[in-house]
Amino acid sequence: MLYFENDYCEGAHPAILQKLTETNFEKVSGYGTDPYCASAREKIRAACACPEADVQFISGGTQSNAIVIASMLQRWQGVVAAATGHVAGHEAGAIEYTGHKVITLPQHNGKLDAAELRALVATFYADDNHDHMVFPGMVYISHPTEYGTLYTKAELEALHAVCQEYKMPLFLDGARLGYGLAAEGTDVTLADLARLTDVFYIGGTKVGALCGEAVVFPHGAPAHFMTMVKQQGALLAKGRLLGIQFDVLFTDGLYFSISKNAIITANRLKAGFAEKGYRFFMDSPTNQIFLVLENAQLAALEGKAKFGFWEKFDDTHTVVRIATSWATRMDEVEALIDLM
Amino acid sequence: MLYFENDYCEGAHPAILQKLTETNFEKVSGYGTDPYCASAREKIRAACACPEADVQFISGGTQSNAIVIASMLQRWQGVVAAATGHVAGHEAGAIEYTGHKVITLPQHNGKLDAAELRALVATFYADDNHDHMVFPGMVYISHPTEYGTLYTKAELEALHAVCQEYKMPLFLDGARLGYGLAAEGTDVTLADLARLTDVFYIGGTKVGALCGEAVVFPHGAPAHFMTMVKQQGALLAKGRLLGIQFDVLFTDGLYFSISKNAIITANRLKAGFAEKGYRFFMDSPTNQIFLVLENAQLAALEGKAKFGFWEKFDDTHTVVRIATSWATRMDEVEALIDLM
Amino acid sequence: MLYFENDYCEGAHPAILQKLTETNFEKVSGYGTDPYCASAREKIRAACACPEADVQFISGGTQSNAIVIASMLQRWQGVVAAATGHVAGHEAGAIEYTGHKVITLPQHNGKLDAAELRALVATFYADDNHDHMVFPGMVYISHPTEYGTLYTKAELEALHAVCQEYKMPLFLDGARLGYGLAAEGTDVTLADLARLTDVFYIGGTKVGALCGEAVVFPHGAPAHFMTMVKQQGALLAKGRLLGIQFDVLFTDGLYFSISKNAIITANRLKAGFAEKGYRFFMDSPTNQIFLVLENAQLAALEGKAKFGFWEKFDDTHTVVRIATSWATRMDEVEALIDLM
Amino acid sequence: MLYFENDYCEGAHPAILQKLTETNFEKVSGYGTDPYCASAREKIRAACACPEADVQFISGGTQSNAIVIASMLQRWQGVVAAATGHVAGHEAGAIEYTGHKVITLPQHNGKLDAAELRALVATFYADDNHDHMVFPGMVYISHPTEYGTLYTKAELEALHAVCQEYKMPLFLDGARLGYGLAAEGTDVTLADLARLTDVFYIGGTKVGALCGEAVVFPHGAPAHFMTMVKQQGALLAKGRLLGIQFDVLFTDGLYFSISKNAIITANRLKAGFAEKGYRFFMDSPTNQIFLVLENAQLAALEGKAKFGFWEKFDDTHTVVRIATSWATRMDEVEALIDLM
Repeated sequence: MLYFENDYCEGAHPAILQKLTETNFEKVSGYGTDPYCASAREKIRAACACPEADVQFISGGTQSNAIVIASMLQRWQGVVAAATGHVAGHEAGAIEYTGHKVITLPQHNGKLDAAELRALVATFYADDNHDHMVFPGMVYISHPTEYGTLYTKAELEALHAVCQEYKMPLFLDGARLGYGLAAEGTDVTLADLARLTDVFYIGGTKVGALCGEAVVFPHGAPAHFMTMVKQQGALLAKGRLLGIQFDVLFTDGLYFSISKNAIITANRLKAGFAEKGYRFFMDSPTNQIFLVLENAQLAALEGKAKFGFWEKFDDTHTVVRIATSWATRMDEVEALIDLM
Repeated sequence: MLYFENDYCEGAHPAILQKLTETNFEKVSGYGTDPYCASAREKIRAACACPEADVQFISGGTQSNAIVIASMLQRWQGVVAAATGHVAGHEAGAIEYTGHKVITLPQHNGKLDAAELRALVATFYADDNHDHMVFPGMVYISHPTEYGTLYTKAELEALHAVCQEYKMPLFLDGARLGYGLAAEGTDVTLADLARLTDVFYIGGTKVGALCGEAVVFPHGAPAHFMTMVKQQGALLAKGRLLGIQFDVLFTDGLYFSISKNAIITANRLKAGFAEKGYRFFMDSPTNQIFLVLENAQLAALEGKAKFGFWEKFDDTHTVVRIATSWATRMDEVEALIDLM
Repeated sequence: MLYFENDYCEGAHPAILQKLTETNFEKVSGYGTDPYCASAREKIRAACACPEADVQFISGGTQSNAIVIASMLQRWQGVVAAATGHVAGHEAGAIEYTGHKVITLPQHNGKLDAAELRALVATFYADDNHDHMVFPGMVYISHPTEYGTLYTKAELEALHAVCQEYKMPLFLDGARLGYGLAAEGTDVTLADLARLTDVFYIGGTKVGALCGEAVVFPHGAPAHFMTMVKQQGALLAKGRLLGIQFDVLFTDGLYFSISKNAIITANRLKAGFAEKGYRFFMDSPTNQIFLVLENAQLAALEGKAKFGFWEKFDDTHTVVRIATSWATRMDEVEALIDLM
Repeated sequence: MLYFENDYCEGAHPAILQKLTETNFEKVSGYGTDPYCASAREKIRAACACPEADVQFISGGTQSNAIVIASMLQRWQGVVAAATGHVAGHEAGAIEYTGHKVITLPQHNGKLDAAELRALVATFYADDNHDHMVFPGMVYISHPTEYGTLYTKAELEALHAVCQEYKMPLFLDGARLGYGLAAEGTDVTLADLARLTDVFYIGGTKVGALCGEAVVFPHGAPAHFMTMVKQQGALLAKGRLLGIQFDVLFTDGLYFSISKNAIITANRLKAGFAEKGYRFFMDSPTNQIFLVLENAQLAALEGKAKFGFWEKFDDTHTVVRIATSWATRMDEVEALIDLM
């Protein structure tokens, strides 16, 4: 079986397991106050060229989204997101569970458009009755998006400008950030994110870690953030588990080099599929490929290759997602191209 | 000044004030257990031809929406509403504050379409990952809608059928229900609502009362509803205030006869505006009229007539709402037609 | 039947009903922006000798408590209250429903002790792990308390001092405030409350109004308070209902003069009961009297007098509450003394 | 430095790291649907002698508490706990954040008393106004308790009987369950817990795992539990991380054998301290020892041994917690006895 269903089907980069093993019997303090967390924080600050940043480690993506949003919004505010944003549709209402509305805008290849964002906010404040409405209080984007697409630096700058103008924090979900930074043709760097957002996270779960996201607040975390993390049940007693993983990932650029593997393998797949005349649902420069397959062909692949079901395309076609990762081997890639 | 901004600018029907005064020194029990609440419940059950219905009185519309929805949804469920539904946009996030998502569908003259509702739910359950999503657990409609439009009985039956099929309660917000029932051409009666919905409310605040909505559960209220009302801060100690008002409104058909006044006056206005060539933004059979006015004309009316600002139409035009009510006098109507 | 069960069994002071009737057809703007609300605010500010105060009207006590607390606490904070405080035990978890803990301290005749409060907060901050705990962020007291007792000015000053020291707002629930201010021997005035608390409310529901509490913020309301009121479902469209009532109550000192009636009638009852040798459960200077009755006697009174059941005293005795109000007549009082 | 501050200062049992490494590149499905989770579930069911149990893995203790409680309580219910229960005091209000009250009873060596529980519930339902109060809907106990003490089987049976009588689920927090089961003199087994509770968890974080608790529902989990886990942000994409750990811990009785080490080392410490005349704050049969130390002695130990600060005892004494774990070595123990 060729397994391309998602980018979290393997464990962790071996260097992580090795470090967990080496440090296993060291006695360290809990709740993220250990030296590995401290070291990882320092390395991440350096990688972001943002020495003043606060860095906090949280176990997973939905948890990071819910905690960041709930800790930064005021009660009368909601978070603006693309209609296809992960927080809008695929987190079982985790944001609403914290009492906040997700205000949606149309997506364009999975992305928010700065002009539409400005129009939304301007219209909101122009409404006589806006005291009866949810205030747009924060903007959520993902990079790569749910469709594997990327913002350009200019697009991020435009969003940043609107957010600054209306004093809304800009939050970037980087669950697959490594793959975004490693993509060909992108002009966006970690330092750009530290400059252009108010909070973003560097995804570990899908980029080489067993679990964990590094949440970066370039201008500092909200007051009592740790207590809010605890209140949402997300403060790990053995914080070392997250600290060690990110310490390894940010040693000698490991995060970036392993991310590159996902891009190289994805690019080879895309070239192979294109050669064979497959139809792409959307053009994506990162590690997720969306193909429109005939249902008959999809049925024939059952038991031979495993893809992610994305959505029904029409009565006879289905959109599937094919994902590579830091761990995908080129022989698997070639086998899949041969198979299809 | 001719005041047509909304339908809650006057106090209450005089018969209500008179009854409040007559009964003022009677000593009755609190929290909705008094004889006036009991009598009002009985009269409402009779008016709905639904002797088994539970009837509960709540002070206002947003409160009723938040309480009904939060008490009937399970934690993993959200409420489906038109994008223009009051709960979706004009209640400051009251539904999300209780932890639930409002799942929106496009509106058609303010209304939900049963086929689109069925498609939404069918697509939801077809999604492999629907355990990661908010379950559509209830359907919210308003009648009249925010645009003053009305469902036909056939449309309600179609929505009812989808809701039954997918075991989703159907909730009808009747903040202006009297005006909907009194409209010309409607084929929907109170008894139809009791038959076709799982919960609806009969609006008092906008139809002759000082405050109050009568929430009707044709098949019974959720267990411990009173405790949930208390928990949301909405249990009035002097429940008589609501009971007496609805007892008066449902004596000798007062609710229906005073609603008729809003329709008659609105119809006269519509005829007058049509005669003068005004442009209607939307055709509405109830007590709200939406006109597209030139900004210059709107400015000229300042200080002479007061309308509700609805939305910007284009750079030189504005949509205004002109509302009549149970209390609107025909001389005001004629004066407005003359003025414009 | 002699009805002394509570202080909300009658309607409103007749002057309120008269004013509601007189102003009934005036067309005014909604949501608390009408001239009667403005006038009532002005009169209340004057009565509090606090010209800068924000005054907001809310329908009832539990709602006021939930809204004030939820709008003033940060997410990591809870509210400190006596174990017998209304918010701690008799509001169906309305505070917790907004996400906040009620942190309890022992009661002393229903009151918080300033030294115990200081000890609680000092111990909290001395705990190494207090980041894992709910921060004491606000203090809730009631005056009169649930037992009808009153703070002295010195006691309020002591609580105020602790609150100032630890930057915790002091919130005083005045559901029965009129009866507290009118009690014999009290040295606390409205102006004292405006000086010593950060927010308090002047109860209307139990002191002459049909419904409504006037929430006074001596130093200003929290930002976007109106939106939070809306979000909790408590913004009445016809705000006039509350404005007119408080405008009447604060015209010519009506609030104070009608409160006096409850004290005079309660004092006559206490004298009568004492003369007959009844046992008082607690000494209370306001409108609530707590007697320890033999169960047999209580049974004998059934159908003749109605009291509030308070709690079981022992196997053969019960504590009952006997309440007077602005509306209690002296002939009822004498009849009850005769009966018992 | 001799580190006895807590039982989560080391990493994981080496067999866990080895298994994580061995299985690292196996491609498995996400969100707890992998074969390791399945295998771990089966082994836990066997260990509990409860083949019908649902077993779910969650990252940590506070998260488990918040998720279990919020998913099993109805909105009008709260959870009953000892005043010293972890959910009552040390989780930053995580339960209240989900909208539920923690109803406290006095603790007796950290434990709830069944008779007091019955009295609480009986009194609740005897109150005429209990519809205005939070219903006791669930009972939370911990075993070992926060003081390291244990329930006897008879005590659990008594609590179980009250819970059955009043239809309240009994929930046992087993963050340190291994140490409770391995204690000398206990008559409680895993099978007893499956028989006497409605949900309990087997703590991993403090008993050999990097993170993770196995939540066991002997009679099945609440409907849509997975969606609620996702909604609270706790569904790990790489569920294997938890499954593999518990699979290892429940292979060949590892969980029990490593727990024994904590007991043996704690017992040696207790004997040593007793011999030297130390004063025990409380007698505890598990891995936590509470000593009353003179502040001067505590200061002298600074830099040599690290204990947990528990609470101030009096002006010159402090209560400290000394914890052993699965990883504590006897040479450390002897060194500590020598030092003190």
